[in-house]
Amino acid sequence: MLDYLRSHRGNLLHVLDPFKVPIEQATDKARALSDLEFPALILASTDWENFEDTLNRYIERIRRASESLPILLHFPPRVGVGMPLVGAADGLLYPFLLESDDPYFVWRSYVDTKERLAQTASAWSLKPPEFIELAALTFGDDARSKSVMGIDPVETTAQHLGTLSWAIKTLGLDGAYLYSRYAKVPNETCAYFRNRLGPDQLLFASGGVRSAERARELFTAGADFVIFSGALECDNWRPVLESMVRGCRGEMQRAQHNPR
Amino acid sequence: MLDYLRSHRGNLLHVLDPFKVPIEQATDKARALSDLEFPALILASTDWENFEDTLNRYIERIRRASESLPILLHFPPRVGVGMPLVGAADGLLYPFLLESDDPYFVWRSYVDTKERLAQTASAWSLKPPEFIELAALTFGDDARSKSVMGIDPVETTAQHLGTLSWAIKTLGLDGAYLYSRYAKVPNETCAYFRNRLGPDQLLFASGGVRSAERARELFTAGADFVIFSGALECDNWRPVLESMVRGCRGEMQRAQHNPR
Repeated sequence: MLDYLRSHRGNLLHVLDPFKVPIEQATDKARALSDLEFPALILASTDWENFEDTLNRYIERIRRASESLPILLHFPPRVGVGMPLVGAADGLLYPFLLESDDPYFVWRSYVDTKERLAQTASAWSLKPPEFIELAALTFGDDARSKSVMGIDPVETTAQHLGTLSWAIKTLGLDGAYLYSRYAKVPNETCAYFRNRLGPDQLLFASGGVRSAERARELFTAGADFVIFSGALECDNWRPVLESMVRGCRGEMQRAQHNPR
Repeated sequence: MLDYLRSHRGNLLHVLDPFKVPIEQATDKARALSDLEFPALILASTDWENFEDTLNRYIERIRRASESLPILLHFPPRVGVGMPLVGAADGLLYPFLLESDDPYFVWRSYVDTKERLAQTASAWSLKPPEFIELAALTFGDDARSKSVMGIDPVETTAQHLGTLSWAIKTLGLDGAYLYSRYAKVPNETCAYFRNRLGPDQLLFASGGVRSAERARELFTAGADFVIFSGALECDNWRPVLESMVRGCRGEMQRAQHNPR
């Protein structure tokens, strides 16, 4: 999945919440994304319960609608459980929450998850999804992320951004995932990480992307993938999706050839 | 072991290299350290081979000479092997080499080691040693550490030291181990980390400590444990050991009550 994503930079990605979006709508959307040549579909939610059953069923239905669309998981880990995952998914965006005040969400959940996988390896009928290791950074006040994962918003001073990019490089992560639940990822911060990440590292930008115009800004600021979710949470999502894609085709093409 | 070490701050510690110091000398030294109320003995070396056999035999002999002296391991991990360890030891100072250019030595070896332990848990007749997780920082040029573990010397600018203490806090490590193979740990850097570490975090300082005077400097700079090795690598080690202890008793006592 990592190599696949590296060779599919300069693309929009859509996030579906399997605990919120009815499966019939999800399969319609997956088909539409496939037709529009989206390189993958992300399933994500801050909340989850009955994870394996729900996700296995959900993914099975999506596969039937759109066989070849790779599926990525993006969920927060939970203390005592580790990262929830199912073998039916192709990849998993693993968040290293560098701004969390709880080391479990910074990195220890990863050790926990790997230990659990090592113990249960023989019980897996499918290979676990490939982990794409990303520094997950949130921008703007976000009481929800604070209460679930102890995350403070990123302080965007030059010194602190320097510390974060040192950490991404030193830990050897696969890239960064910039997110804002209620505010927006500053374009200049996106550009900052583009300049600091290595040529093999991936940059995802998301949060409140509801228009082609906003997506264009993030591609122009160096994002490899611009992610949107809520923009399609309406009955009339097809024209919204089509206008998103149409409205930033040029920027996507340019982003595929961004110098890194 | 972590709680034990926390309640035994303000002490000298001696390092024995089990691949260099003959076992007869090691048992004599262990007995002497016990008599002088050293809180533990560290076994360490940059090189190792035939680890388990050598260490199990070595530790067995030391235990016979000095039953109650806790034994800590301090070795570098190796790609493809993880961290070498034996259940006969009580603790293991796990180095997170934050200045390594190879993420394996920064943190991935820890995941590797934990995965291996999870897979082999049932085969362990003794509990694995308790891991004490320490940021391991080296000072001064050190071609040996560079070639074995990709480690660059710590840049002692305020900004970079700030980055390192951010990392120690963010990762939730148990403390820091400052080391210099050929130069010396700057006293002011030791003091810097003392001020930045939390009250529960431990500060070890080592490298070229050959006199009570040097040990006093490091205790005064806030080290919880001052570690010496080569000073006793001579036939006449008893008076050297005794003068080390005698020469910094006052500083050790003060270090036990250092504000943190």
